[in-house]
Amino acid sequence: MSNATFDLVIRQARAATASDVFETDIGIRGGRIVQLGQGLAQGQAEIDARGRTVTPGGVDAHCHLDQPMEAPARMADDFRTGTRSAAAGGTTTVIPFAAQAKGESLRAAVVDYHARSEGRAVIDYAFHLIVSDPTPEVLATELPALIGEGYTSFKVYMTYDDLKLDDGQILDVLDVARTHGALAMLHAENADCIEWLTRRLEAAGRTAPRFHAHARPMLVEREATHRAIALSQLVDVPILIVHVSGKEAVEQIRWARAHGLPVFAETCPQYLFLTAEDLGIDDSYHGAKCICSPPPRGKENQQVIWDGLADGLFTVFSSDHAPFKFDAPEGKKPGGAEVPFRHIPNGIPGLETRLPLLYSEGVLGGRITLQKFVELTATNPAKAYGLHPRKGTIAIGSDADLVIWDEHEHVVRNAALHHAVDYTPYEGMVLQAWPALTLSRGEVVWDGRQVVGREGRGRFLPCGQPTLLPKR
Amino acid sequence: MSNATFDLVIRQARAATASDVFETDIGIRGGRIVQLGQGLAQGQAEIDARGRTVTPGGVDAHCHLDQPMEAPARMADDFRTGTRSAAAGGTTTVIPFAAQAKGESLRAAVVDYHARSEGRAVIDYAFHLIVSDPTPEVLATELPALIGEGYTSFKVYMTYDDLKLDDGQILDVLDVARTHGALAMLHAENADCIEWLTRRLEAAGRTAPRFHAHARPMLVEREATHRAIALSQLVDVPILIVHVSGKEAVEQIRWARAHGLPVFAETCPQYLFLTAEDLGIDDSYHGAKCICSPPPRGKENQQVIWDGLADGLFTVFSSDHAPFKFDAPEGKKPGGAEVPFRHIPNGIPGLETRLPLLYSEGVLGGRITLQKFVELTATNPAKAYGLHPRKGTIAIGSDADLVIWDEHEHVVRNAALHHAVDYTPYEGMVLQAWPALTLSRGEVVWDGRQVVGREGRGRFLPCGQPTLLPKR
Amino acid sequence: MSNATFDLVIRQARAATASDVFETDIGIRGGRIVQLGQGLAQGQAEIDARGRTVTPGGVDAHCHLDQPMEAPARMADDFRTGTRSAAAGGTTTVIPFAAQAKGESLRAAVVDYHARSEGRAVIDYAFHLIVSDPTPEVLATELPALIGEGYTSFKVYMTYDDLKLDDGQILDVLDVARTHGALAMLHAENADCIEWLTRRLEAAGRTAPRFHAHARPMLVEREATHRAIALSQLVDVPILIVHVSGKEAVEQIRWARAHGLPVFAETCPQYLFLTAEDLGIDDSYHGAKCICSPPPRGKENQQVIWDGLADGLFTVFSSDHAPFKFDAPEGKKPGGAEVPFRHIPNGIPGLETRLPLLYSEGVLGGRITLQKFVELTATNPAKAYGLHPRKGTIAIGSDADLVIWDEHEHVVRNAALHHAVDYTPYEGMVLQAWPALTLSRGEVVWDGRQVVGREGRGRFLPCGQPTLLPKR
Amino acid sequence: MSNATFDLVIRQARAATASDVFETDIGIRGGRIVQLGQGLAQGQAEIDARGRTVTPGGVDAHCHLDQPMEAPARMADDFRTGTRSAAAGGTTTVIPFAAQAKGESLRAAVVDYHARSEGRAVIDYAFHLIVSDPTPEVLATELPALIGEGYTSFKVYMTYDDLKLDDGQILDVLDVARTHGALAMLHAENADCIEWLTRRLEAAGRTAPRFHAHARPMLVEREATHRAIALSQLVDVPILIVHVSGKEAVEQIRWARAHGLPVFAETCPQYLFLTAEDLGIDDSYHGAKCICSPPPRGKENQQVIWDGLADGLFTVFSSDHAPFKFDAPEGKKPGGAEVPFRHIPNGIPGLETRLPLLYSEGVLGGRITLQKFVELTATNPAKAYGLHPRKGTIAIGSDADLVIWDEHEHVVRNAALHHAVDYTPYEGMVLQAWPALTLSRGEVVWDGRQVVGREGRGRFLPCGQPTLLPKR
Repeated sequence: MSNATFDLVIRQARAATASDVFETDIGIRGGRIVQLGQGLAQGQAEIDARGRTVTPGGVDAHCHLDQPMEAPARMADDFRTGTRSAAAGGTTTVIPFAAQAKGESLRAAVVDYHARSEGRAVIDYAFHLIVSDPTPEVLATELPALIGEGYTSFKVYMTYDDLKLDDGQILDVLDVARTHGALAMLHAENADCIEWLTRRLEAAGRTAPRFHAHARPMLVEREATHRAIALSQLVDVPILIVHVSGKEAVEQIRWARAHGLPVFAETCPQYLFLTAEDLGIDDSYHGAKCICSPPPRGKENQQVIWDGLADGLFTVFSSDHAPFKFDAPEGKKPGGAEVPFRHIPNGIPGLETRLPLLYSEGVLGGRITLQKFVELTATNPAKAYGLHPRKGTIAIGSDADLVIWDEHEHVVRNAALHHAVDYTPYEGMVLQAWPALTLSRGEVVWDGRQVVGREGRGRFLPCGQPTLLPKR
Repeated sequence: MSNATFDLVIRQARAATASDVFETDIGIRGGRIVQLGQGLAQGQAEIDARGRTVTPGGVDAHCHLDQPMEAPARMADDFRTGTRSAAAGGTTTVIPFAAQAKGESLRAAVVDYHARSEGRAVIDYAFHLIVSDPTPEVLATELPALIGEGYTSFKVYMTYDDLKLDDGQILDVLDVARTHGALAMLHAENADCIEWLTRRLEAAGRTAPRFHAHARPMLVEREATHRAIALSQLVDVPILIVHVSGKEAVEQIRWARAHGLPVFAETCPQYLFLTAEDLGIDDSYHGAKCICSPPPRGKENQQVIWDGLADGLFTVFSSDHAPFKFDAPEGKKPGGAEVPFRHIPNGIPGLETRLPLLYSEGVLGGRITLQKFVELTATNPAKAYGLHPRKGTIAIGSDADLVIWDEHEHVVRNAALHHAVDYTPYEGMVLQAWPALTLSRGEVVWDGRQVVGREGRGRFLPCGQPTLLPKR
Repeated sequence: MSNATFDLVIRQARAATASDVFETDIGIRGGRIVQLGQGLAQGQAEIDARGRTVTPGGVDAHCHLDQPMEAPARMADDFRTGTRSAAAGGTTTVIPFAAQAKGESLRAAVVDYHARSEGRAVIDYAFHLIVSDPTPEVLATELPALIGEGYTSFKVYMTYDDLKLDDGQILDVLDVARTHGALAMLHAENADCIEWLTRRLEAAGRTAPRFHAHARPMLVEREATHRAIALSQLVDVPILIVHVSGKEAVEQIRWARAHGLPVFAETCPQYLFLTAEDLGIDDSYHGAKCICSPPPRGKENQQVIWDGLADGLFTVFSSDHAPFKFDAPEGKKPGGAEVPFRHIPNGIPGLETRLPLLYSEGVLGGRITLQKFVELTATNPAKAYGLHPRKGTIAIGSDADLVIWDEHEHVVRNAALHHAVDYTPYEGMVLQAWPALTLSRGEVVWDGRQVVGREGRGRFLPCGQPTLLPKR
Repeated sequence: MSNATFDLVIRQARAATASDVFETDIGIRGGRIVQLGQGLAQGQAEIDARGRTVTPGGVDAHCHLDQPMEAPARMADDFRTGTRSAAAGGTTTVIPFAAQAKGESLRAAVVDYHARSEGRAVIDYAFHLIVSDPTPEVLATELPALIGEGYTSFKVYMTYDDLKLDDGQILDVLDVARTHGALAMLHAENADCIEWLTRRLEAAGRTAPRFHAHARPMLVEREATHRAIALSQLVDVPILIVHVSGKEAVEQIRWARAHGLPVFAETCPQYLFLTAEDLGIDDSYHGAKCICSPPPRGKENQQVIWDGLADGLFTVFSSDHAPFKFDAPEGKKPGGAEVPFRHIPNGIPGLETRLPLLYSEGVLGGRITLQKFVELTATNPAKAYGLHPRKGTIAIGSDADLVIWDEHEHVVRNAALHHAVDYTPYEGMVLQAWPALTLSRGEVVWDGRQVVGREGRGRFLPCGQPTLLPKR
């Protein structure tokens, strides 16, 4: 055993895990971290990280890439541009969604999604499933088989006509999760309420982008959150509520936790840094850029989300990257026109900015510890979706997915981002840090100036069972 | 640099931190962990941990050793017996209390406590202060100076005539904590209510040990918990509520956290494994063995405490070891007599059983993850009291304070414990694990059969500032 | 003005309103209370009430009479037997339901229900509507017209396949209530959850009556209660949640009220006096007698309901009388067979026992004041449904609907009740009071031994707007 | 019996009770209401109330008159001016406080207070006691005797050096209330917190009137409210929390009620109509006019208080009239000087404006029903303090204490008020109603222009037991 030979040694890192921060060299061989300690032997390559914080590469557990859409909408990012953008922002694993269309098999969605991703990604990736048509075949056969093959998480929508399940279907899907040890993610908004409000707004001619927020007030999220909790409680299975936006939903989740229910929650940068006003204070169509669901809320909710991040209420911090161009007929201007908010593709880009925003405003801004940053952006998502300890930490045996941080002022400019979207909601925002280097399995994929990871080097990761909770 | 020479290598450990579990060798030199990785070079000594879980040595942040008492009471354990008992149970750091007597200076208490500990301990130790007389001198001079010297935490009592502070005094002490970056621990029970109830019970001849629980119903803890939270909120400073016993107090703390307040909480084994019935279902004096404050509660509260441990509500799991013999005039029979509960020394032993109880029933019982065990018993206490990362984790540069676990059935017998108390509340309880080996700074102090650590080898640890929260 | 001539004077009553209790004679003319005071002039008739409590006749705002059912089920009580039973129990106004069948017009239901009631009732009655098919025609035309004609309340079901509305439909109906000043009553249970659980229980062969309670655990009521509150909040309209059964639903309503939402609530005797065990502790079919929805809950919930009555959480106390015979093919044995719980007609009788149960156990049992009794059973239901001050109180100008109470031990026996059902859930229960006399518009309809009110004397009452809240 | 002879008949009143509103004549004889009905026989005197609302005279259960103060402070109103002011504002019963001084007997305070009131009042009055020194003698002898003599309520202070009790003393006093059926009122603010904050503010030179609010933030009220609830729960006795000011205290009371605890609450006009800004937005001394405790809060709390009034959370609406002149050495300028807020006499006038404010803004403003107005201002205070049904309602046998309302615009001007204070906090406020006539025991005491009630006609009322709750 020739212990002394490393492919790469990162020197004098200030390495952070979800638990600790310590000075160490990081010895890497075969894409994995094989040794930690000061004064490690010489590597084939060396990186000097003196004085630099090194965190596990981000795991973005909520992002949409090249997901089939109803025309004319089309996602701007495929696996190539999406993963390049991720890498440049310090993310080394993405888990986008293989989405079943109603009437289609889930397996077909997975096969198709492999076709879309194969040979494209510069970083590793896994798939969540989206279950939109839980037929008896899907429930009894496809889903259990796919879980066994490493697709151990699936998203369930309580809104969107083409995706939403009714409560009975959700119970069926949660029951499969329980039986086979998978984790269900829930998009919690009440579809009927949204439709009812949307029609009223439309009838009143209130169709500008800003009315998107009026059509989805927080109570529609609160109601669905409460319902999701009740459904999971009935089935006796953990769930994870995605993209929680503000106070009323947070209160429901706190209620669940106080009652001993294993209800996990995710939030996203848009609920820390945007407000409903970003959808427009007049009827300007520029507000379309910030249309996402749930919409950003009133400013007082930002502190509620920060408190939830610091306190442990939130388990996961994701981007919900949903890439649509603003000025394009396949994007926010469907068919080329400025349209009522109902028809504007829903989502905002955020893969690349997720980590820098939280590192800068959260860690350097004194709102969360460095360890909490690691936990929220890497360790917990890896645990939630069965990728830990391979991903999400700095430990012996883990993949050498690492970010070396540069703590200098950095102005966000879309021109400098690597996604295929023509804007960022954070244009001009001044951050205090940006990844100086991103490594995926020991290879530099972002060198601080450009994405140097080779297209197709990213591998598909079959997922194991969630490990947030003890085995039972 | 002779990287290859280790004083000790622990081979093939299944090492756990508060974040991760990974297979590794652990290279130790100069009492510290200097290298992690598989296939480390040969050490001067080697320990085979194949198939064994290795956790950071426990940090018991709430225990009483050789604390001066009003006669005839006397604590059974001094620093020698106490730390031997700790070591045998996997604990490698204790933080007992240098207690100011009313009318005495705080400095005097510290000097005295050093005299009591010097040359006695087999493991490392730090001191909390107990502030019972916050004179202007104490507040303006002594306390700030002591904080600067490494006594960065202090306990404040809301009950016990010889210790309790009024609300104004608590505000004064919290204000010093805020200004100088220390952490205040609060014993939250309403003294007046307890006195009022005790007199009523005494007047009715209800003085058997079990009435101790009647004199301290959960509402007296809930009230004081709410008050403690309010006081900390007024001063705008984090606090830690010690030995939280059940539902009503937990609800107050959840309320605080939901409002973004940095209120931390500790619980203890007695609230997981004992109930009020252990104080006696008749007037038998044996119930005196389980007299502690707050008393164990009704059984339904045990699940509330387990939920709080799993969920993150609790930050720290301590023993509140308060060692009084049962059958001794200086213990639970003051002056040799069976006395009314008011006069029975308050406290139960638990230093040695703390980790095995939680490891066995919590981790192996499927209630908490192994990482959560580490967090609660070692990492978080070390962070709360400014000993992290030196103590409380397995990381490069940390002290090699480690426990190697033996997962076999183990029956708790007081005869086999190392404290100087003549009973354990857990006599006969069947556990599934016990430390096979405890190391303190790389030295074996417990070898699975006997305590082999030399008396006096334990060092005093000056504490830094708490690191549970980001710097502000 | 011939002030001195009364049709009837009740002498020396201890009269109770929702506010006061006072000694008075009650002078009645033309069916109305025209004078109060001691020593009133002689009446054409006189009743001596010396030492007797006199309350307003009960308004039972939730009862089902002769409601069309899917065969073979048939309600045992029509307007004749139902109102006779009501009268014998001290109730002088009933508000049963004109139920729209899906595909049918609401107007048709009202016409049909008038046909069923015309000439049958011995006491006065109004109609609630049940909206099961809110077509555009119903929403835009029928409902507004009917509200204008005195049908100012309607019930909306969140469960039962033939009745339930989806959330969008509920919003539509609530919006009509808001626009036209009507009050919506909601039956809050989650249909999908019930169906999902029922299928599971059936698949496991668990079809005995007691599994009815397993198919409708409190969380399905809690969920729907939260949802109902959210829907009313979205529309900004008061609602009344009917037959609230226990703690979890009560907590949701308290939450709503604490947030300033006008959410009213009703409970029923079955939630004070029955428990889930009354559905059977083994698989005996006798449990079918107590099948109603929501089912009675665990015993600890009874106190929660009592607390809610005393505290003002509940606005209305109704019977939810739903009369099905036990031993009859058109009743609890559909087609003559003992069937799975899903097929057992849902409901229990209670019109006649409602007031005596609450008077005896609530007022005489020291749980609520006499005024609160009046408020819950008469005044508030009359206000909620636009019948106050004509009904529901003892005041100048109000209908002389009165109960004179006999406070003696009274054993409940179905043989002595006047409904057409062959059992009462309260058989053998020992009460401390029963109506000695019931008057409807100044006429004795129950004389303490028999119903003496003439069939057909009861009049239909068009309802005004609810007056629980100030006009806005 | 000559039923037909009335001393006075009020014709065609729109009479309101806490339950009902009805058209009636009101027949009065011997100072009592003896007959209700339309077309009553001729009275010795007649008052035409056609089209006018008539409510029970107000019961102001929280007001201070001629209460001995430490010099130089002196209350501006004695029983003459105070009750004249009350009468002019529609109040017909006042319950001020016989305050025990520390070291003095309670009996002495009562004797003294009778001397102060005898022959002065124009309306009826009862006494609350203030217990400031609960010696064994007071607890065992004086208090029980006084309760038996009709002093059935007492106030306990948790703040103010000369009045406050510690928790043990409060328990003692509550225990007497429980044993002897009295009702304790609690002033809930944490004294230590206030003192601590006051010293800090003083040390920083922040002594202008507006800093009074900084010294008493809502958390000091919330804390004491929680503590008061806990103490009453321990003793198992109802309490009434006086002058609740806003959200945090309201939440505590809601919590208590949700747990079935008989915790009643009072609020006052200042929490509906003033805010902290009325104490000054700069250091102007005029803010002293609005200094009272608890201080008015932020504007968002006003809605919380309105919600609590409408919902039933609040049982009583009082003035907390505490009359100190602004521009007088015995008032807000002690010794003639503008002094630090700590030394400014605490309290604001409000006896005369209490009813008009709530009638105008609450009833006519559509926030509460007319019945709720009666309940809060008259019926419930009378019940809480054992004066019902003699006072607080319009019913046979009740005292003819009545207000006939004039619904016209009325501008509040201190010049037109009848108290001896030189300002009103509501100067210039435009109301929509004012009493046209106030009757006390059938005699006009306020005729709409002047107070015509004779000094000394008011009688002392011994109080019975509270009747808010059923007897137990």
